[in-house]
Amino acid sequence: MITEHFVNASVTPLESLDTLSPHEVAKLQDISQGGLYHLFRQCCLAVLNTGSELDSTRKVLNKFREFDIRITHKHRGVQLELINAPASAFVDGEIIQGIREHLFTVLRDLLYVGDELDQCCDGLTDSERITNIVFQILRHASAMRPHVKPNLVVCWGGHSIKRGEYDYTKKVGYELGLRRFDICTGCGPGAMKGPMKGATIAHAKQRKDNPRYIGLTEPGIIAAESPNPIVNELVTLPDIEKRLEAFVRLGHGIIVFPGGAGTAEEILYMLGILLHPKNQHIPFPLIFTGPAGSEAYFETVDRFIKATIGPSAAQKYEIIVNDPHEVAVKMRAGLEAVLAYRKQTDESYHYNWQLHIPHEFQQPFEPNHEAMAQLNLRRGQPDYILAAQLRRALSGIVAGNVKEPGVMAIEQHGPFELTGDVDIMKSLDELLSAFVDQHRMKINHEEYEPCYRIVRA
Amino acid sequence: MITEHFVNASVTPLESLDTLSPHEVAKLQDISQGGLYHLFRQCCLAVLNTGSELDSTRKVLNKFREFDIRITHKHRGVQLELINAPASAFVDGEIIQGIREHLFTVLRDLLYVGDELDQCCDGLTDSERITNIVFQILRHASAMRPHVKPNLVVCWGGHSIKRGEYDYTKKVGYELGLRRFDICTGCGPGAMKGPMKGATIAHAKQRKDNPRYIGLTEPGIIAAESPNPIVNELVTLPDIEKRLEAFVRLGHGIIVFPGGAGTAEEILYMLGILLHPKNQHIPFPLIFTGPAGSEAYFETVDRFIKATIGPSAAQKYEIIVNDPHEVAVKMRAGLEAVLAYRKQTDESYHYNWQLHIPHEFQQPFEPNHEAMAQLNLRRGQPDYILAAQLRRALSGIVAGNVKEPGVMAIEQHGPFELTGDVDIMKSLDELLSAFVDQHRMKINHEEYEPCYRIVRA
Amino acid sequence: MITEHFVNASVTPLESLDTLSPHEVAKLQDISQGGLYHLFRQCCLAVLNTGSELDSTRKVLNKFREFDIRITHKHRGVQLELINAPASAFVDGEIIQGIREHLFTVLRDLLYVGDELDQCCDGLTDSERITNIVFQILRHASAMRPHVKPNLVVCWGGHSIKRGEYDYTKKVGYELGLRRFDICTGCGPGAMKGPMKGATIAHAKQRKDNPRYIGLTEPGIIAAESPNPIVNELVTLPDIEKRLEAFVRLGHGIIVFPGGAGTAEEILYMLGILLHPKNQHIPFPLIFTGPAGSEAYFETVDRFIKATIGPSAAQKYEIIVNDPHEVAVKMRAGLEAVLAYRKQTDESYHYNWQLHIPHEFQQPFEPNHEAMAQLNLRRGQPDYILAAQLRRALSGIVAGNVKEPGVMAIEQHGPFELTGDVDIMKSLDELLSAFVDQHRMKINHEEYEPCYRIVRA
Amino acid sequence: MITEHFVNASVTPLESLDTLSPHEVAKLQDISQGGLYHLFRQCCLAVLNTGSELDSTRKVLNKFREFDIRITHKHRGVQLELINAPASAFVDGEIIQGIREHLFTVLRDLLYVGDELDQCCDGLTDSERITNIVFQILRHASAMRPHVKPNLVVCWGGHSIKRGEYDYTKKVGYELGLRRFDICTGCGPGAMKGPMKGATIAHAKQRKDNPRYIGLTEPGIIAAESPNPIVNELVTLPDIEKRLEAFVRLGHGIIVFPGGAGTAEEILYMLGILLHPKNQHIPFPLIFTGPAGSEAYFETVDRFIKATIGPSAAQKYEIIVNDPHEVAVKMRAGLEAVLAYRKQTDESYHYNWQLHIPHEFQQPFEPNHEAMAQLNLRRGQPDYILAAQLRRALSGIVAGNVKEPGVMAIEQHGPFELTGDVDIMKSLDELLSAFVDQHRMKINHEEYEPCYRIVRA
Repeated sequence: MITEHFVNASVTPLESLDTLSPHEVAKLQDISQGGLYHLFRQCCLAVLNTGSELDSTRKVLNKFREFDIRITHKHRGVQLELINAPASAFVDGEIIQGIREHLFTVLRDLLYVGDELDQCCDGLTDSERITNIVFQILRHASAMRPHVKPNLVVCWGGHSIKRGEYDYTKKVGYELGLRRFDICTGCGPGAMKGPMKGATIAHAKQRKDNPRYIGLTEPGIIAAESPNPIVNELVTLPDIEKRLEAFVRLGHGIIVFPGGAGTAEEILYMLGILLHPKNQHIPFPLIFTGPAGSEAYFETVDRFIKATIGPSAAQKYEIIVNDPHEVAVKMRAGLEAVLAYRKQTDESYHYNWQLHIPHEFQQPFEPNHEAMAQLNLRRGQPDYILAAQLRRALSGIVAGNVKEPGVMAIEQHGPFELTGDVDIMKSLDELLSAFVDQHRMKINHEEYEPCYRIVRA
Repeated sequence: MITEHFVNASVTPLESLDTLSPHEVAKLQDISQGGLYHLFRQCCLAVLNTGSELDSTRKVLNKFREFDIRITHKHRGVQLELINAPASAFVDGEIIQGIREHLFTVLRDLLYVGDELDQCCDGLTDSERITNIVFQILRHASAMRPHVKPNLVVCWGGHSIKRGEYDYTKKVGYELGLRRFDICTGCGPGAMKGPMKGATIAHAKQRKDNPRYIGLTEPGIIAAESPNPIVNELVTLPDIEKRLEAFVRLGHGIIVFPGGAGTAEEILYMLGILLHPKNQHIPFPLIFTGPAGSEAYFETVDRFIKATIGPSAAQKYEIIVNDPHEVAVKMRAGLEAVLAYRKQTDESYHYNWQLHIPHEFQQPFEPNHEAMAQLNLRRGQPDYILAAQLRRALSGIVAGNVKEPGVMAIEQHGPFELTGDVDIMKSLDELLSAFVDQHRMKINHEEYEPCYRIVRA
Repeated sequence: MITEHFVNASVTPLESLDTLSPHEVAKLQDISQGGLYHLFRQCCLAVLNTGSELDSTRKVLNKFREFDIRITHKHRGVQLELINAPASAFVDGEIIQGIREHLFTVLRDLLYVGDELDQCCDGLTDSERITNIVFQILRHASAMRPHVKPNLVVCWGGHSIKRGEYDYTKKVGYELGLRRFDICTGCGPGAMKGPMKGATIAHAKQRKDNPRYIGLTEPGIIAAESPNPIVNELVTLPDIEKRLEAFVRLGHGIIVFPGGAGTAEEILYMLGILLHPKNQHIPFPLIFTGPAGSEAYFETVDRFIKATIGPSAAQKYEIIVNDPHEVAVKMRAGLEAVLAYRKQTDESYHYNWQLHIPHEFQQPFEPNHEAMAQLNLRRGQPDYILAAQLRRALSGIVAGNVKEPGVMAIEQHGPFELTGDVDIMKSLDELLSAFVDQHRMKINHEEYEPCYRIVRA
Repeated sequence: MITEHFVNASVTPLESLDTLSPHEVAKLQDISQGGLYHLFRQCCLAVLNTGSELDSTRKVLNKFREFDIRITHKHRGVQLELINAPASAFVDGEIIQGIREHLFTVLRDLLYVGDELDQCCDGLTDSERITNIVFQILRHASAMRPHVKPNLVVCWGGHSIKRGEYDYTKKVGYELGLRRFDICTGCGPGAMKGPMKGATIAHAKQRKDNPRYIGLTEPGIIAAESPNPIVNELVTLPDIEKRLEAFVRLGHGIIVFPGGAGTAEEILYMLGILLHPKNQHIPFPLIFTGPAGSEAYFETVDRFIKATIGPSAAQKYEIIVNDPHEVAVKMRAGLEAVLAYRKQTDESYHYNWQLHIPHEFQQPFEPNHEAMAQLNLRRGQPDYILAAQLRRALSGIVAGNVKEPGVMAIEQHGPFELTGDVDIMKSLDELLSAFVDQHRMKINHEEYEPCYRIVRA
């Protein structure tokens, strides 16, 4: 078997990505504050660290602290020199083609975001500007397929799930693939990988031309959630909110598998949008599903939603237990409704412009102690606003558990403090306790200390 | 979940297969003796019966006795009307694309073999003629890829293997696919399906263009071994010997997974050829492999080979236990030797003309009682001849267990009678007993009665 | 500028044509009576002699009598060694790609016709058999495009026409190409080349994918009418009648430009078929057209047809003078009628099975003195039969003027003798005299001696 | 025949260009000062006015003053409504596909230039910035083909040349195409169209995949020089200097056919660059060629160059008369030197970064009376500076003859005044007089009044 080790290699770009200017190469090599080197190195490491079981950014960065990437500045084309790269990206010393592609898409996106978007879209509101930036990044990454009927299913769920749950995501992916649906996930293992594997087999049987396995990531999460090389369109959005917006504007329906707090956060994001009055009539299939034995996760989430936002919110999703075929059949019906609506309203198939995403959901949320303390987890505000507040609370908790700056902030300053209505706070606590009980939190369950403290106000 | 049921559907051909003449359509509709209808119906049923667990032709034919296929004679193109077809071939009422392709490749091959080959190749010996017919069938099916470096790995093994063995074949297929090898199997489930599934995932990661999953079948076996829809090149050879010749002339290396008597038969076929003096210097990688826990199968086979044909025969193969990575690395080395040899000897990459296949291995063996009784299982003949005799003995036993006419002959006339040297007969008996003990025979193990009787002469 | 000279070169096949068996290579090398060498050499020479002004087979063969073609028998693929090949096929020593393709299509067709067709189609009448053989040759050459709406326009006309006429054929080809029609001609210069050149420019403007420039030839005519390298599908039919049948079954409409006796012969062939009672309702656009100044040719032909077969025959065609745009618009309308009819009658788009071609038009006509003498150029027989007889008369005259055996027969035995009704014979004589006057016969006009003698009976 | 008329039509975009944001659509519809409507309308009109004989922008604009283009704002994709569009862009009421592509490339380029480039390339000098902007526009238009060996031949020359000259450009294009070279011109008829037509025929014969016919244009010139629909990559650069820079950085060699003052201007541009000391060792094939009978043009230019810049400048080009084959053979040799140099110096194949283009050649030159008066046409400055000054002088003269603002300025303020050394001024006058004598100026030769006046200083 293979011994884990490090590999040095030179990697040349794909032809379509091999037209950098010397100016761009210089920016990628620039180790100064405004330069892209550090971000580029971190993202490349994540891409190379495929199949890794490490789910903490810090652990990954630490393990491969000797990793370096040098951009040989050749006019004939750039060449990446990889030093002490993770061996898992290579087969017999040669880089896996899918990973090679990922390296250069990272480069493409980092350069594009840095260079060309800062001044875009004069005359628009900030919210419109963000929507346009997401659009432009996706278009620049050739992620738009105009005139293709709605068929892109977003799969969310935990990256660290049980074997049976993982196998279930493969079966759902297989049923989706049999119906020629494309798959979009957030990159990483678990529920982000299983549906793609299942769909790959089904697409082969259906001889699907150009099947799409889209991975949407962002620099803060990529290190802990390496894209699976099956992903054949990797787009690195600049922050988590733009990544979420990309999911809901590019995707035509969403399936949520069991996960942890991060998955619950995504559910709240989606619910908050769908609950907004402007989106009331826009069809958007949203299915929660898992295998027999995993019912508890969605029961927990369902109870939390009903208790906090209210029972009407539950009309926006459907829970299906242990029936991949049913999931796919329901998704097909949902996508047909999406198609009909887009035709009727002259909406494009490739980007859901009509969907209103409140500004609250677009603003990057920096989950530091101050921001967490200022969250307003109270009733008496529109339900979509409450959903946004709850999502941020969960977002902060995920950060405190997984993301480097969050973990460090907790170590330094102690747990976040959250305030709100008593019953909402109680529901939140129950939700998180249930996640711990269900081993849904990426933590040492025995000596788990929550990264938050509920301060009932 | 899906209830098993029957489906009626109209299927139009792929464009490339949609140029039949009225004369050809008439032949496919012809239910008379010389007509193709019955053969065509049987093969189509097999193709449609994908994923079936039934491994007896008779059971399949019986279950779908109401199945019918009508060829609507339209000048604009043929159309197949399927009546009472197995539901497993359909998704939401629409035929799986891979199966649609298979239907029309069957049609292509049956027409070609019937029509154009009878008079071919005047001036050649019978052996050369058979080799040329196999070549022409493969070429007509576009299965030749000139100038592509040797990369086609044939996988043999049982279609009814244990879960762990099946998973192992997927892992091996994955490692082969990571190295961009194409896969060729005999169609059906088990060891014929696993490597293709594994390779499909790896090929997706490697972005392999036009990956090949070749299935070679023949009318007598197809009903019990439905091609997996992943198979994207299905070729139906006219008989089992031409199918075997297609494997060894088209493939560049062979991996054998655990199986039963049929697999042992294929091993003997291959060994017989490689042992022929004319083939002495032709490199042909041959690897037997299985997961931990399945060592017994190859130990049994290895012991049998050494005891009957002799220890030198064991130099022609390598046994690797529980190491998919090693299997792939060894196969890569083997294929490089094949490449070097073909370059050196000006042999084509797409068809192994040089390999000498003795006439004994090409003649269809009709495993009836008389033919079985006439087998000469004795020492004192060239080792490759003995291998041929042993293969036929096993072939008859597989027929008696699985194939319709064989099973019926046994029911009618009692077990086959085999004669030969005492120790060879003993080895054969031990081999088959071990297979029964290892549950390697597709039989009711509790009330198993062998379909053969050893008559030591 | 280039000095005319000879080139030696090695040419490797296109991949799709590089799967010959050793047996097939041997046949191509076989210089014995039944072998293909002589035919293959002659056809290859013709293909290489592109752009030649020599329009006599004998002159071509004589000029390149040192030409030889050797087939290097390599297992890895055949290789053609060209010795003393015409320099016009090469650019800076490298063969023009289109010509390289032609060489291997010739090889493909000669092998196919020789090998696989002799025994085909048992149970059919001779006429049906011929139709099926033409179908199979075209299918084997991948010339069928099922499901593509009728868009293949056959262009007939002289290969040795005036500059203004040639430019006019380009303009018509351009207008056809603007409407995305594909072009099919008989190979060679003049009216066979112009429409393709014009269409090439228009197809480029229309971004037509896979434009088709089909050349149908046969061994007897190819040497004098080298295919233009623009031809991207060259099919070599075994004789002139099968070539004509290929034109009318594959093509969807026909445009006839000015030519000579050969063109008139093709017109009679087509008219004879369209006049057959069984074909009465089958739409088949047939347009005669030429530039201002060339009206005389079609006036002559039109007069001849009305005088011999009768005025009703003139309803089958339309004459358009000097209006490429009108020709294309009329052809478009005609093809729409063809499409409607094929839909209505369930006829395929790719092969006109319904068209009845009387056996008289299918039988190869060997234009020797005896056969010419036996022609019955009299009234009192069905008009399509008379058309067939007149066509043969013209066919013999073309042979006597252009084709090697015909020319030699005339030299040896004197002119052919033709007999028939006085007024028909007179019309024929007037037709041919007018062709001589219009310089439409490929002869030395000053000392022209007709190769036929009219014996009024 | 077709009567010239106007057409109304709806045109949908190509898929790859159909992902506009509502914000972008709004900009194209914006008729205000900063909006793109007027520019877009003018460019679209030019694109539609294909094959026009009108070579004055004003005449074009006047003839089609009723032309309008409306952008239907549909989310599903934009749709262009063309009102009173030139009929020459349509075949039987359907727009020619190549022209449809051109419309949307114009849209693509206008949006890109307007939106994303203003703020690019911080930290670079102005000259570097211009070079990077040209690079980015070309890259955004997918005009880069990394790793393709240098094969792009730029053809310059007059758009209004004699028939024999036009035919000659076709022959040269044919010889270039036979060698698989791609063609890049400045759009329009004459020498910009002929080489593409010739190459199209040759590329068809050579079966060249994806032949490139690149047209580089700019808003000021496009109306008078409609792109030929053969152009399959149209890029609209923002001004004439960036268009010239695009020619020399994208192209690998240049052929100049006879033209007028504009052609002489391009020659001076190229010479000025090649004469710069930094470019001394960079190979750049530059061939002037024309048919027999057109020698005078290059003799005139050659004499002018030697007399003004000096005889050494003549070493940078080669004049070949009436020998298309020789032109192509010399170009092939030149391109091989380019390839060798780029390999040796690690220069990309797709963009000539190394070539130093002095800032003088990059700055847009506004040929108004003041700027023309300030030109310094004197000796005593580096030869490349003098070349730049002379080019501007010619540029102004071309503008005064052809371009709308220039013509109007002349009408208003009288001829431009030019000053410089006596002998240089004399040479310039002789050059222009010779052009008038040779009918090389797009003017009414009988009552020609020069748009400049030489003020010897």
